Amino acid sequence: MSESDPGFVAALEEAKAGFAEGGVPIGACLVSRDGSILGRGHNMRIQKGSATLHAEISALENTGRLPANAYEGATMYTSLSPCEMCSGACILYKVKRVVVGENKTFVGGEEHLRRKGIEVVVLENEECKALMARFIAEKPNVW
Amino acid sequence: MSESDPGFVAALEEAKAGFAEGGVPIGACLVSRDGSILGRGHNMRIQKGSATLHAEISALENTGRLPANAYEGATMYTSLSPCEMCSGACILYKVKRVVVGENKTFVGGEEHLRRKGIEVVVLENEECKALMARFIAEKPNVW
Repeated sequence: MSESDPGFVAALEEAKAGFAEGGVPIGACLVSRDGSILGRGHNMRIQKGSATLHAEISALENTGRLPANAYEGATMYTSLSPCEMCSGACILYKVKRVVVGENKTFVGGEEHLRRKGIEVVVLENEECKALMARFIAEKPNVW
Repeated sequence: MSESDPGFVAALEEAKAGFAEGGVPIGACLVSRDGSILGRGHNMRIQKGSATLHAEISALENTGRLPANAYEGATMYTSLSPCEMCSGACILYKVKRVVVGENKTFVGGEEHLRRKGIEVVVLENEECKALMARFIAEKPNVW
């Protein structure tokens, strides 16, 4: 698992797209066990006034409803440590692994993911950190 | 917490509305600490082909984005034990209590909710059980 994985590249692109829209710059991408991208998305809290369309939820929603075995062995890439809701979504769909861009800005449900047998990899990616830092500096009241 | 609580009545109404639409008959309702209904909704998996619009997510989404203190002391009523994603959503929004219609058909993230200090009340409501039993008998492949 590395910063050059297509799933991570897509998650980071999604985070940047969210930033460009004036939204919370968090992106996610769901990748199947054979390495193909199943779906990707970014946080839509500001864009849609949504309370639940976090990046991982958007990615799952954009993936659409698949048979349970399509999620087997899948990896969820996300630019920021997933909150409890998004961690729960990964548990619900029984993904194998969650790859986190960074968890310095925020730590979500990583402990619960591990407790449920899901591998958690943290990349400590500098671009993810810088994007969140810039967003928080520019819009402290939104974050 | 009882079956006559307006929040539970609304959650059950939502479950029935979902059934009438041919959907998964699970409903939810978010009630503020002063007893007013903030939002309600039902599972939209079939109706919208949605992977994430479970009843509690729909209720939170229909509630809209509120300031964090609006969720303080709130109760999430749901007709069926909340899955890990929906339990995580209740943890994210720091509701005080989750009231579950029944958990015989399915048990979700109740243990994690309690671990996070959220009160979980199970009503073992017969209507909720009957609705799920009828749905599963009629559409075993969907459930």
